Formats: sequence, C-alpha cells, structure tokens
Amino acid sequence: MVNVGVIGCGYWGPNLIRNFNSLPDANLKTIADLDEKRLAQVGLLYPNTVKTTDHREILDDPEIEAVVVATPMSTHFPLGSEVLEAGKHLFLEKPMATNSDDCRRLNEMAAERGLQIMVGHTFVYTPAVRKIKELMDAGELGDVYYVNISRVNLGIFQKDANVVWDLAPHDVAMLNYLFQADPVRVSANGRCYVQRDRGIEDVAFVNLEYPGGRMANIHVSWLDPNKIRTCTFVGSRKMLVYDDVSQSEKIRLYDKGVDVQPHYRDYGEFQLLYRSGDIYVPRIDTVEPLKIETQHFLDVIIGRETNLSSGREGEKVVKVLEGACRSIANDGLPVDLDLGG
Amino acid sequence: MVNVGVIGCGYWGPNLIRNFNSLPDANLKTIADLDEKRLAQVGLLYPNTVKTTDHREILDDPEIEAVVVATPMSTHFPLGSEVLEAGKHLFLEKPMATNSDDCRRLNEMAAERGLQIMVGHTFVYTPAVRKIKELMDAGELGDVYYVNISRVNLGIFQKDANVVWDLAPHDVAMLNYLFQADPVRVSANGRCYVQRDRGIEDVAFVNLEYPGGRMANIHVSWLDPNKIRTCTFVGSRKMLVYDDVSQSEKIRLYDKGVDVQPHYRDYGEFQLLYRSGDIYVPRIDTVEPLKIETQHFLDVIIGRETNLSSGREGEKVVKVLEGACRSIANDGLPVDLDLGG
Amino acid sequence: MVNVGVIGCGYWGPNLIRNFNSLPDANLKTIADLDEKRLAQVGLLYPNTVKTTDHREILDDPEIEAVVVATPMSTHFPLGSEVLEAGKHLFLEKPMATNSDDCRRLNEMAAERGLQIMVGHTFVYTPAVRKIKELMDAGELGDVYYVNISRVNLGIFQKDANVVWDLAPHDVAMLNYLFQADPVRVSANGRCYVQRDRGIEDVAFVNLEYPGGRMANIHVSWLDPNKIRTCTFVGSRKMLVYDDVSQSEKIRLYDKGVDVQPHYRDYGEFQLLYRSGDIYVPRIDTVEPLKIETQHFLDVIIGRETNLSSGREGEKVVKVLEGACRSIANDGLPVDLDLGG
Amino acid sequence: MVNVGVIGCGYWGPNLIRNFNSLPDANLKTIADLDEKRLAQVGLLYPNTVKTTDHREILDDPEIEAVVVATPMSTHFPLGSEVLEAGKHLFLEKPMATNSDDCRRLNEMAAERGLQIMVGHTFVYTPAVRKIKELMDAGELGDVYYVNISRVNLGIFQKDANVVWDLAPHDVAMLNYLFQADPVRVSANGRCYVQRDRGIEDVAFVNLEYPGGRMANIHVSWLDPNKIRTCTFVGSRKMLVYDDVSQSEKIRLYDKGVDVQPHYRDYGEFQLLYRSGDIYVPRIDTVEPLKIETQHFLDVIIGRETNLSSGREGEKVVKVLEGACRSIANDGLPVDLDLGG
Repeated sequence: MVNVGVIGCGYWGPNLIRNFNSLPDANLKTIADLDEKRLAQVGLLYPNTVKTTDHREILDDPEIEAVVVATPMSTHFPLGSEVLEAGKHLFLEKPMATNSDDCRRLNEMAAERGLQIMVGHTFVYTPAVRKIKELMDAGELGDVYYVNISRVNLGIFQKDANVVWDLAPHDVAMLNYLFQADPVRVSANGRCYVQRDRGIEDVAFVNLEYPGGRMANIHVSWLDPNKIRTCTFVGSRKMLVYDDVSQSEKIRLYDKGVDVQPHYRDYGEFQLLYRSGDIYVPRIDTVEPLKIETQHFLDVIIGRETNLSSGREGEKVVKVLEGACRSIANDGLPVDLDLGG
Repeated sequence: MVNVGVIGCGYWGPNLIRNFNSLPDANLKTIADLDEKRLAQVGLLYPNTVKTTDHREILDDPEIEAVVVATPMSTHFPLGSEVLEAGKHLFLEKPMATNSDDCRRLNEMAAERGLQIMVGHTFVYTPAVRKIKELMDAGELGDVYYVNISRVNLGIFQKDANVVWDLAPHDVAMLNYLFQADPVRVSANGRCYVQRDRGIEDVAFVNLEYPGGRMANIHVSWLDPNKIRTCTFVGSRKMLVYDDVSQSEKIRLYDKGVDVQPHYRDYGEFQLLYRSGDIYVPRIDTVEPLKIETQHFLDVIIGRETNLSSGREGEKVVKVLEGACRSIANDGLPVDLDLGG
Repeated sequence: MVNVGVIGCGYWGPNLIRNFNSLPDANLKTIADLDEKRLAQVGLLYPNTVKTTDHREILDDPEIEAVVVATPMSTHFPLGSEVLEAGKHLFLEKPMATNSDDCRRLNEMAAERGLQIMVGHTFVYTPAVRKIKELMDAGELGDVYYVNISRVNLGIFQKDANVVWDLAPHDVAMLNYLFQADPVRVSANGRCYVQRDRGIEDVAFVNLEYPGGRMANIHVSWLDPNKIRTCTFVGSRKMLVYDDVSQSEKIRLYDKGVDVQPHYRDYGEFQLLYRSGDIYVPRIDTVEPLKIETQHFLDVIIGRETNLSSGREGEKVVKVLEGACRSIANDGLPVDLDLGG
Repeated sequence: MVNVGVIGCGYWGPNLIRNFNSLPDANLKTIADLDEKRLAQVGLLYPNTVKTTDHREILDDPEIEAVVVATPMSTHFPLGSEVLEAGKHLFLEKPMATNSDDCRRLNEMAAERGLQIMVGHTFVYTPAVRKIKELMDAGELGDVYYVNISRVNLGIFQKDANVVWDLAPHDVAMLNYLFQADPVRVSANGRCYVQRDRGIEDVAFVNLEYPGGRMANIHVSWLDPNKIRTCTFVGSRKMLVYDDVSQSEKIRLYDKGVDVQPHYRDYGEFQLLYRSGDIYVPRIDTVEPLKIETQHFLDVIIGRETNLSSGREGEKVVKVLEGACRSIANDGLPVDLDLGG
C-alpha cells in the first residue's frame, strides 16, 4: 500500500485524485490546494482523506511516499524540487516544466536520490494507443511512412502558454512512445489570432522528422469549433486512422491496394473510385487511461514496471516544444534537435 | 459559335472534349492525339468531329479560334507556344508549365498577340467553392484566420512530377481566388517514400502565408488509401468545412460559441463537451465544374467575362509550387515569394 | 424543501438518487434496498442520508412527503399502493405497472387522496425532445405525416418482460407528448429468438395509428450489436431526424424540395441525386434529462407545474403495450385502442 | 452473338440499352419508343442501331432472339405476350406485371414455347448483395433472425402504382434470393399523404414472415428527403448492415459480444457502452449491377446459367405485393401467402 499525496485540486487534479483513490494499492492520504473552497468541494467525495491548504503538510508526512503535482505549469519546477528534496517519488502533470533546463535539474535531483519521476503523458496509457502499438509491433502497418495529427477544438485559451505547449505534448509523447525513437528536427508555423496582443499562438502546424525519414505533422488549434482528435498513420502495408473523439470506432485499419483510376465517362462516375481495400475496426477497451496511468506510477515505484513516461521522457518532450517555438519565431525555420536519446 | 480544337485525349482530355461538345456556343471541330487507338476510342462518341494524329491540322485550320491543350505537363510550353503563334486562344491544363519562366514567356506571347490564356484551375469553377466565396464575401466567416487542407488519396504515382506539382495547384489556385490575394511566403516538408530512388515526393505539407497573417496549410499525398478532400476555414465568426468527397453535405458551417469546460466528474462526462453552436449545411448545386469552366473560356474569348484563371494566375501558382519545392529541398526552410501581385 | 425517500438502489435507482440529492429544493432523507451490500455501496456517496433495508421506514416517516420507487416492474403496483396508502406522493419508474388495471387502481387511489403520481417517462424531459416539440409547435415541420423509430441495441435481456415492455414505453410516452394525442390502433409483429423457450420477444415492430391518419412505426430490439436510437419525423414541410446516440448532432432538420431525377447517362451519375435542400443542426443543451425530470416532480408536488407524465399518462402507455402484445400474439392482427383520452 | 431489341427508351431503358450495347456477346440491333424525340436523343449514342417508333419491327425481325421491355408496368403484360408469341426470349422490368394472374399467364406462355423470361430484379445482381449471400452461405452471420430494410427518399411520385409496387419489389426479390425461400405471411401498414385524393400510398411498412420464424420488415417511402437504402441482417453470430448509399462502406459486419451495462456513475459514462465487438468492412466491387444482370440474361438464353430472376420469381414477388396491399387495405390485417414455392 503506497500512501499518496496530491497537490492541486484544480482542473485536472480531481481526475488524478479520483483514480488514485480507487486503486487498491494506493491510499489517498492527503490533498492540498491553496483554494480552500475548491478543496472543500472536491474533498466532499473523499471523507477519509486529509485536506490542507499547506502542501508542506504532505512533504513533511513521513508516511507519504509519492506526491502528485497537478498545478499550473510554472509551478512544476519549484514544487517538484520540493517533493524530491523531501525524498518522495514525484508524479508531474505535463508538460514537465516550462523549459528543458528545469526538466534536466529535476531529473538530476531524482537520480541522486534514487527517486522516480513520472510525467502525466496520458496518451501513452490510452487503450487505443496501446492497440496501435500492438498493431505496429505486429507489422500490420509495414513501415510507417508518416503520421498526420489534428488536435483542435474551441479554446480553453491559456494565458501562460501557447497552443503548442498546451496540446502538442500529448502528440510528441505518443509518437516517441510508438516509434520508440526521438525526433531529429522540427519546423513549425504558428500564428496568434485571438490573443494577438499577448503574442500567444492559438494555432500551429508542427512538422517533426524522426530517424529513417519518418515524418510527423501535428496540427494544434484552439480556434476550431469542431473538436477533432485524429491521427493517421500511413504505412507501406496499411493505413490506420485513430479518431479519439469517436466512441465506437476509435481505430480504423485500411487495407492497401491499387486504386486504378481509368478514363471515366462522366462526372458522376469519377467520384466513385476512392477506396481499395477492406477496413477493419477493432474493439477497443473503454477503460479510462488515467486508471492505467496511475496504476503504472505505483508499479514503477514498487519496481514492478519500467517507467514509460519518466522525467527523461518529459525532458525530451519539452525540448521538442522549445524547438517548435523557436521555429515558429523564425517563420518556420527548421531546428535540429538533440534529445540525447 | 466558337470553333474549338482539342489536343490530347488521354486521362483528362475526354472530360474537356465532352463538355466543349455539349456547349451550345462551341463547335468541337477537331481532336488530336498521337495515340491512334485512343483517338478512335474517344472519337466514337463524336461522329461529326475530325480526328487527327497531327495537332498541326488544328493549328493550321483558320476556322478554329480556340485550342485546348490537355497533354502531359512537359509539353505545355512547346504546344502552348505553337498555339499562340498560330494566333489562337489557349486553354491549358494545370499546372500551366514546368517552371515559371515558361509561364511568363507564354503570357508575354499572348499579350503581344492579344490572345487569351486560360488555365484549367477547376476549383475556381466548382459550385461548392463558389458558395464558400459567397459566404466569405457576405461576412459569414468574419476574418478568415487560417485554412487547413487535406488532399490525399492512394496514388496515381506520377513519374514526371511530385505530389506537390500534381495536387497542390488546385489548392493554391482556390486560395488565391478565395482570398483575392497572393501568398508571401511558403515553407514545406515533403518526403519520397515509394519512389525514393527517383527522388519524387509522394507526401508533403505546404504552409503558405497570405497577407494579413492568414495562414494556409496544405497536406498532399499519394499514399493515403482513404481519399480525403477537406478544406477547413477558421474565421473569427464561424468555421466552414468543405468536404469535396461528400455528396450530400459538401459544406458545413459551424457557429462559434464559448466551449465552457467545467471540472468534470468522471471520464465519460468529459467527452461530452465538444461543440458549441448550430451547424448549417447549405444545398450545393450538383452541376459539373468543367461545364462552368469550359463555358467561362468561351465567355472570356468573346469578351463577356473577365478571365478568372488567366495565364497570369497560372504563373503565380507555378511560382508557389517552385517555392514549395525549394523549401522541401532545404528541409522546410521558409522561402519568400514575390508573385508580382 | 421536500423530503424524499427512494426505494430501490439497483440499476436505475442510483441515477434518481444522485439527481434528487443535487436538487436545492429536495432533501434526500432515506434510501432503501433489500440488498444490504448494494445499499452500502451506493450509500457511500450520501453520508447524510439514512440507509435502510426496510422500505417501511420510509413509509412511516411523517417528514417524508414524496417517495420514489425504482424497483422491478412487478413490484410497482404493491409498493406504489403502500406509498399512496401512506399518504405520500409517488414517483414510479416506467412502465407504471404490469397491466393497465393496476395502473387504473393506483390512479384511483391517488385521486381519492389528492396525491400526485409521476411516471419516469424520461424522454418527455429530454432536451432534444423538447427542441422537437418547439420546432413542431412553431410549424417548422408542417403537418407531421409519420414517425419512424429505431430503438435497438444488444440486450440486456430481461427475464420478466419482453422487448416491447422494456423499450417501447419511451417511444409511446414521447409520441403521446409530442402529438398531444393518443394512438387509436396498434398492430405489431414480434419474435422470440434468443429466449425462444421462455416465449419472451426480443425484437418487435410496433405500428401505431394516431388521430388524423398519422402513423408511427417503432422498431425495438435487444439483438442489434450496433446501438441505434433514431426517430425520423416526416412532415409536409420538413423532415427531422433525432439521433440520440450522436453527441454533437442530435437533431438534423432537412429542408424539403423537388428531387428531380433526370435520365441519367450512367451508373455513377445516378447516385448523385439524393438530397434537395439545406440541413440545419441546432445546438442542443447537454443537461441531463433526469435533472429536469426530478425537478419537475418537485414542481408538480408543490403545485408549480402541471404533471407532464402523470399516472394517467402511465396508464395510457401501458394500454398501448398491452395492445401491441395482443397483436403480436395474433401475428400482427390490428387492435383498436381506447385510451379514454 | 445474340441480337437484342429494346422496347422503351424512357427512364430506365437507356441503362439497359447502354449495357446490352457494351456486352461482347450481344448485338443491340433495334430500339423502339413511341416518343420520336426521345428515341432520337438516346439513339445518338448508338449510331449503328436501328431506331423505330413501331415495336413490331422488333417482333417481326427473325434475327432478333431476345427482347427487352422497359415500359410502364401496365404495358408489361400485353407487350410481354406479344414478345413471347413472336417466339423471342423476354426481359421484363420489375414489377413483372400489375397482378399475379398476368404473371402466371406469361409464365405459361413461355413454358409452352420453351422461352426464357427474366425479370429485372437488379439487387439479385448487385455486388454487395452477392457478398452478403457469400457471407451468409459461409455461416458468418449464423442463423439470420431478422432483416430490417429502409428504402426511402423524396419521390418520384408514381401515378399508377403506390410506393409498395414501386420500391418493395427490390427488397422482396433480394430477400427471396438471399433466403432461398418464400415468405409465408405478410402484414403491412401504409398511408396516402401527398396523393390522398388518388388513394396512392406514399409510405408503408411491410412485415414478412419467412419459414423458420425469420422476419423481414421493409419500410418504403417517397416522403423522406434524406435518401436511405439500409438493410440490417441480425444473426445469431454477427450482424450485417448493408448501406447502398455509401460508396466506400457498403457492407459493415459487426461482431457480437456481451454488452455489460454496469451501474453507471453519471450521465456521461452511461453513453459510452454501446458496442461490443470488431467491425469489418469488406471491399465491394464497383461493377455496375446492370452489367451483371444483362450478361446473365444472355447466359440464361444460351443455357450457360440458370435463371436467377425468372418469370416464376417475378410472379412470387407480385403475389407478395398483392398480399401487402390487401393487408394495408385492412389496417394491417395479416395475410397468408401461398407462393407455391
């Protein structure tokens, strides 16, 4: 049984709290938030959990082995440092920190103390992504040539981070996991439309090059009223479309074939010729990704599993985000990445 | 009545032939193709039309005022030159030529002789695109922030041109028409997967900047088994999705609104919150774009309409393609464009 | 503030409990269930609510004004009678009882005592259905000619009731509400496939005739793996499709027009001609129907609103179900209905 | 080489003409139509074919072996009789005749003379239906419990036949073919809305019982603006949905499984649980059904294949239509069928 403390009951924290509370191997001992009212509201559902507005109560509790930090990005580094200094394992929401130097420092601190850092890269723990990995590993797609991702919806407009920092960590973490490789170059174009005066990009196209010439294109936006979460993987054998918004058909696997486009006799006929193989829609478990993710954190702590989204992975993701933003600032100039893979 | 000659009965030619033949204002006098068998086959449907394997028969015919060239791209310049030298109006399939110098030369020749060049930028004549223009002009979208285009399917793999030259002319011509403006910068990433040894890109992402910070992203590919033809226009007031593959819902107009994303109580609820306004799907005429396009050519010749896809427009499109390919060759380096607006 | 007691914490009860608990005008005082374990499990979330395995504790509590019965259908009559005898308002899940005689008796008891009975006809309180009513009342559809409903999914196979009793109450209640009228005739075909030996129908087609020649066809099934909840309303002016499974496009309103189907030149062209007007997809509130329904019960009790799904409505629905089953037993023989409207 | 004559160049005739003209084994010798203008217009595409306004020119031509009748339903019997009397094989559009007596008489005439009658039951020759048959025969669906069909769109409102005679022949012929069995009972409900004064039903629900308790429900309508062509086959092993309007996913095969519907914690979660197996979308050939159908007619004539939609089949279909209309006239009263299978 691992005693867990959670710092932050805001937007995402309650989901982590709910999941840690439901794990048989964890004891949700204490939750902390500066906002007393929010703390009371969330705390209602957890009568046996200690509530505090002072997160040091968690740090000072010798029974607590693991601390979850679900606070705004800018506090990740100072709070994370405190947690590690207190000798506790650290779960940090993504992105890991506001810059890669801070990530590196956190990783060094953890290494010195023999502690685990896990970053909340949810998509690494999503059943559909696991299924994609399984299909890729089984060779179903053949060589994956390129990936095209859309992650767009109508705001929440962040004020302290642009849309790349807000949304792209999901995709970079997912791709690094699926490819088991790190990107070597990034170029990106982005624009500030709604928050023009603040200089915060609300739409961006990020292009990553992975080893072997594999390409990934990521479209992130807070401006699209129609929510889209689509990842298309084009391989030498098959194509896979992962639609995270769909509830019943999250993954569609398209057989490949020759699309003979003969001379056509008229306008109508021309439009008929647009697919050339079977489609397969595998059933995907509907288990909540956070359940797998929080359980994995416990398993990592007790040494039962290898950390799939370690601080090292979190640092790599942040380096890619930094590179993308540098490219945006230079009108799309390509930026070489050295993730020290 | 305009006498028309057509050179080229291959892949696209028969569609032009069929449409010119059905226009009341045109007389399809002669069709030419080097391939006698193909000529005979296509010619069957046009018993009263002269068939010839020598295109000079068309050039030398004083009755023919207008010549349509629907041959491979590399022949556009030499054949186009001959047509203009023969003093005839010229309809050229897109892209106008293999490089912008040739385009410029053709335009100069036409100007000297007072002849029209029209380039087959079909999407300028597509009813759905006309509807989009109408909605944009009426202010329905507000300021158009950016456009995202996917034009992908499973090849025809071209051997003399990459996927940018093959597919992107449609999009560039359409955007220039809709924005009534020319892009000022392009950056592009592309890769050669299937024709790696030939060095012909089969997938590319092209990012255009239009004046006023408007951005357009174009994804072209010959590798996707699932045919997609989607253009998303995100504006300050509304969003429009144009799906050219859909037969009954080509255009969808999304109202905008605030997408309040409250603290959620569990996994299921979270997924509910993804749209925030009415959707409107206007009826679109099903008239064939080529019918409008070929009629427009006649109207331009007789001075009834202003050329909407003139040689000047064709030259601009080719310059954009050249810029995109230069960017691809430099790993996405941005390229400034001077289209001489 | 109305004190409420709930009998039954099984499948549906917890939803009623959760909603009554969250209403500012209600006090969820006591919940009862025979299953101690289930009671404890559900009760965890309501620390201030009394839990009991003896429902008489609710009946005997003079502070409790209103009792919710969410138990198996066969217990609706005896439990409902007890509640009314105890002088308390009664909320009964649908269907109201196993036969119309019992419904009538409950209604008589309530009338004698001046008590309200409300039946849980959820769809009367569903925002999408409310929107349909609004559009119908505004004349958007013109005369509604007929309605076609599919309510199918892969079981829960009931053992004490067939698919008509399980699923059709939703539709009959919804139609009576929308038409503000009662059906005058029913014919139905049904079959027992999976529970053939038990003689319990798992699929049925129920055809209702409403006054003025309006027709409604209801397809209910426990055998379809693909969940469908579609109601199509065809009117003289427009058609409306209500898809309850869709999250973002629950209601689609189709303009009507002339579908000219000319001679077509070939196979492809033929398929183009299948729609003839604009489509409009209004935004629908995502508020939970049970929230509206439970609030309505309180409003009815305190005399603020007129009972929209009274015991009288519940009795009518049961009479229609009885008629449908009689028709099924006679291979589809039409059965005249006298709902005493 | 079979010499073929076609009587009727109206709505459907040109499709038959085009297909017979393109078959290597057929010679389209003569086409006849009373409307000279229509004849000329259609005839343009077939310069080598004789055109006549007198169909007797076809009957009297000793070289013509086979005659295609694509005229209004009421002329099927008299024209068909003439063709058979002239000693020629007969292709009749569906429905075969206006009543089953006429069908029987035609069949007797053909039998006496050793001639073939083939009825244009197109769906027997549709690649998607062939695929369904293949999957059924391979046991993929298990026992087929029931079939649910929607064949609805916005008119062409016929003036000489109701919607059952217009649309349902397709479905009855398809079901008889797929089940290799004849229905034993029919009940139907229908209404006249738009042509109320003429008494012509424009919407109907037809319920068929096949041997072994298999049920088929057919919804036909001229009133639905949204064109739907869906057939759902629910079997003991799998479910199949055939959507004839879809171009890329005509057939979807749903695996079956247990749909555990646990207690749910709130509204959002509840909606997640609606599918329980893989989906498979097989590629379907895009060959035109009429091509297969017309080739089959030739193969039947020369004895290479057994007639799959013989006059006997046409007679059965008409008997079912008669039964359905009798049931409609009696408010849905079930009608026993004796198709003499």
